[in-house]
Amino acid sequence: MKAVRLHAYDERPRLDEVPEPTATGSHDVVVRVGGAGVCRTDLHIGQGWFAPLVPVELPFTLGHENSGWVHEVGAAVENVGVGDPVICYPQQSCGRCAACRIGDDMRCERGLDFTGLNRDGGFAELLRTTDRGVLPLGPALDPVDVAPHADAGLTVMHVVRKAVPLLGAGTRVVVQGVGGLGHIAVQCLRAYTPAEVVAVDPDPEALKLATDCGAHHVVGDQPVEEVQRLTGGAGAEAVLDFVGEGDAVATALAMVRPRGTYFAVGYGGTLTVPTLHLVLPEISVVGNAVGTHDDLRELMALAAGGGVEVRTRTYPLEAFADALDDLEHGRTHGRAVLVP
Amino acid sequence: MKAVRLHAYDERPRLDEVPEPTATGSHDVVVRVGGAGVCRTDLHIGQGWFAPLVPVELPFTLGHENSGWVHEVGAAVENVGVGDPVICYPQQSCGRCAACRIGDDMRCERGLDFTGLNRDGGFAELLRTTDRGVLPLGPALDPVDVAPHADAGLTVMHVVRKAVPLLGAGTRVVVQGVGGLGHIAVQCLRAYTPAEVVAVDPDPEALKLATDCGAHHVVGDQPVEEVQRLTGGAGAEAVLDFVGEGDAVATALAMVRPRGTYFAVGYGGTLTVPTLHLVLPEISVVGNAVGTHDDLRELMALAAGGGVEVRTRTYPLEAFADALDDLEHGRTHGRAVLVP
Amino acid sequence: MKAVRLHAYDERPRLDEVPEPTATGSHDVVVRVGGAGVCRTDLHIGQGWFAPLVPVELPFTLGHENSGWVHEVGAAVENVGVGDPVICYPQQSCGRCAACRIGDDMRCERGLDFTGLNRDGGFAELLRTTDRGVLPLGPALDPVDVAPHADAGLTVMHVVRKAVPLLGAGTRVVVQGVGGLGHIAVQCLRAYTPAEVVAVDPDPEALKLATDCGAHHVVGDQPVEEVQRLTGGAGAEAVLDFVGEGDAVATALAMVRPRGTYFAVGYGGTLTVPTLHLVLPEISVVGNAVGTHDDLRELMALAAGGGVEVRTRTYPLEAFADALDDLEHGRTHGRAVLVP
Amino acid sequence: MKAVRLHAYDERPRLDEVPEPTATGSHDVVVRVGGAGVCRTDLHIGQGWFAPLVPVELPFTLGHENSGWVHEVGAAVENVGVGDPVICYPQQSCGRCAACRIGDDMRCERGLDFTGLNRDGGFAELLRTTDRGVLPLGPALDPVDVAPHADAGLTVMHVVRKAVPLLGAGTRVVVQGVGGLGHIAVQCLRAYTPAEVVAVDPDPEALKLATDCGAHHVVGDQPVEEVQRLTGGAGAEAVLDFVGEGDAVATALAMVRPRGTYFAVGYGGTLTVPTLHLVLPEISVVGNAVGTHDDLRELMALAAGGGVEVRTRTYPLEAFADALDDLEHGRTHGRAVLVP
Repeated sequence: MKAVRLHAYDERPRLDEVPEPTATGSHDVVVRVGGAGVCRTDLHIGQGWFAPLVPVELPFTLGHENSGWVHEVGAAVENVGVGDPVICYPQQSCGRCAACRIGDDMRCERGLDFTGLNRDGGFAELLRTTDRGVLPLGPALDPVDVAPHADAGLTVMHVVRKAVPLLGAGTRVVVQGVGGLGHIAVQCLRAYTPAEVVAVDPDPEALKLATDCGAHHVVGDQPVEEVQRLTGGAGAEAVLDFVGEGDAVATALAMVRPRGTYFAVGYGGTLTVPTLHLVLPEISVVGNAVGTHDDLRELMALAAGGGVEVRTRTYPLEAFADALDDLEHGRTHGRAVLVP
Repeated sequence: MKAVRLHAYDERPRLDEVPEPTATGSHDVVVRVGGAGVCRTDLHIGQGWFAPLVPVELPFTLGHENSGWVHEVGAAVENVGVGDPVICYPQQSCGRCAACRIGDDMRCERGLDFTGLNRDGGFAELLRTTDRGVLPLGPALDPVDVAPHADAGLTVMHVVRKAVPLLGAGTRVVVQGVGGLGHIAVQCLRAYTPAEVVAVDPDPEALKLATDCGAHHVVGDQPVEEVQRLTGGAGAEAVLDFVGEGDAVATALAMVRPRGTYFAVGYGGTLTVPTLHLVLPEISVVGNAVGTHDDLRELMALAAGGGVEVRTRTYPLEAFADALDDLEHGRTHGRAVLVP
Repeated sequence: MKAVRLHAYDERPRLDEVPEPTATGSHDVVVRVGGAGVCRTDLHIGQGWFAPLVPVELPFTLGHENSGWVHEVGAAVENVGVGDPVICYPQQSCGRCAACRIGDDMRCERGLDFTGLNRDGGFAELLRTTDRGVLPLGPALDPVDVAPHADAGLTVMHVVRKAVPLLGAGTRVVVQGVGGLGHIAVQCLRAYTPAEVVAVDPDPEALKLATDCGAHHVVGDQPVEEVQRLTGGAGAEAVLDFVGEGDAVATALAMVRPRGTYFAVGYGGTLTVPTLHLVLPEISVVGNAVGTHDDLRELMALAAGGGVEVRTRTYPLEAFADALDDLEHGRTHGRAVLVP
Repeated sequence: MKAVRLHAYDERPRLDEVPEPTATGSHDVVVRVGGAGVCRTDLHIGQGWFAPLVPVELPFTLGHENSGWVHEVGAAVENVGVGDPVICYPQQSCGRCAACRIGDDMRCERGLDFTGLNRDGGFAELLRTTDRGVLPLGPALDPVDVAPHADAGLTVMHVVRKAVPLLGAGTRVVVQGVGGLGHIAVQCLRAYTPAEVVAVDPDPEALKLATDCGAHHVVGDQPVEEVQRLTGGAGAEAVLDFVGEGDAVATALAMVRPRGTYFAVGYGGTLTVPTLHLVLPEISVVGNAVGTHDDLRELMALAAGGGVEVRTRTYPLEAFADALDDLEHGRTHGRAVLVP
């Protein structure tokens, strides 16, 4: 089958012909890929950012936002059957360690693999995972439409669920960066909270998308000043930062009100802050990475009810290079999806 | 001035001419009443239900859902000035006891008075309260429109804030009784949660109101069977019961799923349940009464943003008897408001 | 091997000779039983209380509080090995449904079995469970000592974790019924909270045990009056009721202060309360059954650190009838444990 | 009367003779000072750290940790009477703004004063505050003994209440810096949680104090390595950092496990961390400043029950310079208290 594989860091991945995976383990599930989202993390992986943190042997197949239909199952699989539409939960987990036993699959103590990061991903015709790595989709959802939810949406739902208790009526929440994650965040915040949503992005196209998604206010230039103005000088109760690099880190922190929370999701930059500036106003900074299988379940429930939609642009698998280029050069609004 | 006063239990209240109240205490605030909501509790007070629980000397002026404009203030009042539009928080509170110091004004240890229950209420031209018993309204809100929020809406916000953590996407919440409180509850649940809202009421007019307010499903007959059907046999994660008497109590409990919560708001009936039926499925029953000043603040923020509206029908103060009659005989949909 | 099996309701179980279980499934774990706690529920099972709720084919082996050493494992078992000391989590669970994925094993949607209730239990030399039904014990703990924690302690930890947020310094918590569960509850409350613990039991021996376990106050007669006195007339912030039958239900409710919570754990009686008496003081009633695997993990961590100890009296397996008799006639203080 | 007043930054305060304050406002309370704790913040105030943040006109009387007996009350004061023993809550608050109405007195929107920071404090014979700035002490507590709880203990209780939900059995919590706050923290953590407490301080005297207070482990050199060793390489679920300057900030962060929380209390240094190092392991950083009146109430309840004790060394008011010197040069273990 065809697969887009990374052979060396700082080189473009290549479209290879590789053997089809099979359900060799009793809990294995092989999925025929319907859609595979393209994420900024794919660029970071290609640049070797994760090499020191999450070792992987090259070449391997990229793609951690996958959905499709069950193609083959191992003998012990009971939760899905061949032909079922599914979305893939990217983190492999053991189901028996203390973290898994409370649903914190991301912290599985077995340190298992993450699809498309250190095991073969979904930029391919078939993908092998396990019965804990899939979630059946109801009839309301098409695998191709929801693929980016497998990581972009999942991460958003994870952080939004943390933010919800802070966001009653009369509060304000900033979404910084209205790309693949941010435009989903605007929708989830609207569905889960009565808070005013302020979208911040330098790109006017992104702000148009934010408005379409339900943002109450959009801000391009001088975000700190504008957010202060929109909040009567107080700052926002919560800032969800999907950028996390360059000036965005300091900007995000400056938009948080006393007792507010800066949810760090994007990464790449450095947070530098005097402890007095955290202590005196009692600011919290909360790191967020991906989410749990239960976050994905809840997100799919929201999507099935029409509460959230990913803005996607599809590319044939063979056009993966265009998809990566468009993302890298800021031409992607919403999410690119490869369709094998 | 004119005031509608209760002279004896089981007798109609009367329209009396009484002296105008003045701001005799340094924290006193006299409010010119703009609107005063009429509540089922007014009927219960007239029937003497509260006499053994909350002693009061007759006659006194009814009316615990009040709003208007500040008419006079005591020397120490700093949070409002003459002419300011306000909504009245009905519970008097000391601000210094342990309960008040955490915002639980309803549990003020000084056991202070409740407007319209054991001190003169707002079925009158003027009402005396204190600076802790008012909340300034922003320019977006008209006192007459929001009067019923002072108790009906306040109680709803109080219980909805408790229910929100249970109500993620894919969950179902039942609102039993779509009257003055229930129709506000449907709106608050829609604003605060992505849950499916099921409204239950035997009256087709009430169900029409529920649909207008955003209920996803409405149920008239056989509510237990219908809710089981709508929830795939599981029952609802939360049931908000605004009836609380007759069969409604058993019905509410029967609609709750294992690990779900029955929020009791309406009262008058009796809950009878074998402990095994609470223990085995881990059902919770949560009593709810009125709310805090902070609940009222948050509700007004929601109303100011257009997130909740009370369906009102106004009556002149002199027509109080019609308003009480219409409520008693089920002819009121939404809330009656007396306008002095 | 020998096993104590129930052949008919309202008849004594019998000591039978039965075939040894083997690890036929790939996730199966066979445990050599070190200790098996004897619980009031064993009496209830024998009286047929659960027959309509949880169907089971007779005869079967009783015993849901088990610990021991791993005797045999299926091919896919990775979390324990032969010889490991373990405590058994009684609820069988699939690990893949929505409830299991958040650690709520007790609500497994597969409706799987409960050891000693509708599948063979631990009143036997060997017990078959699965890799999700065991928890490895550290070197600090002896399986025989901890057996009753598998259900008695587990249930306590489950309810105590719910109560902890209510129990800061200056609060009071009542433990009603100082038997197998209650004496563990006193210890867990002391370890987890600075609250004053009031133990209520008509039996002076039980109260002596409560004092040994760290209760600040013990109450025999007139518990409602005494608790009111100890709390300055207010009542307790939380009441943990391990009796749940007869007068205990009304007594428990009467000891709860406004805004307090009645945690129902024991069962058998009926709760009857006017909704007004729940609504006005905002009382909550919370049903509790068993606990999660994570509750068991946390309990074993507490036990390993010396924070909780079960008072046990051991009986040889053959003396099961004496153990059941002693329990039934109130001669057991703490917990009886059968040692095969 | 005598008062220790700051006349210029970077100069020693002086003992002045000043007029006695009187209860001029109707809610005023004048307290005869029994004890006034000496805090590192007093040194920082003297060095002008707060001058740009909290403007104040010099000279003024230092001292924000005060207790004593009510000396005079204004006409409207109802919660205390002359002669009552009290501890002083340092933050002045209006009681009517949104923050005060939920008990978040520290965030009073009126931006009112903080005793000993920008209004006259308790390094004096008499201190003027208001009825919202005092808390009556029960008979079990002596004002002189508890004075440092008014800020040191208050801050500890505030942060400990946030940390409690993270600290079940089997978890580990680090207390970095065992001075005036840290030694109270060790005791509060022992009273509120079953967690293992690890105290970190380079000073052997401080570690001895930590052990006396109940720390399970004490660590002097190489704290990061030691904490990793004590936690099996994982790090601690929570780190409470009472230092906040120099290397301590980086050290504190390095001791936190994935998904753990760094509670910043001490200040003076700078936190510098790549966002990836917060995001990937989902670390939280939570700033903490002082606490609420309710935190103080709960702390006094704990102290009254014997759950926490401040290690104090008393100095006559006239010896204030010695007290400040001893603190500055690390000769104070526990807390210095001036006794007028």
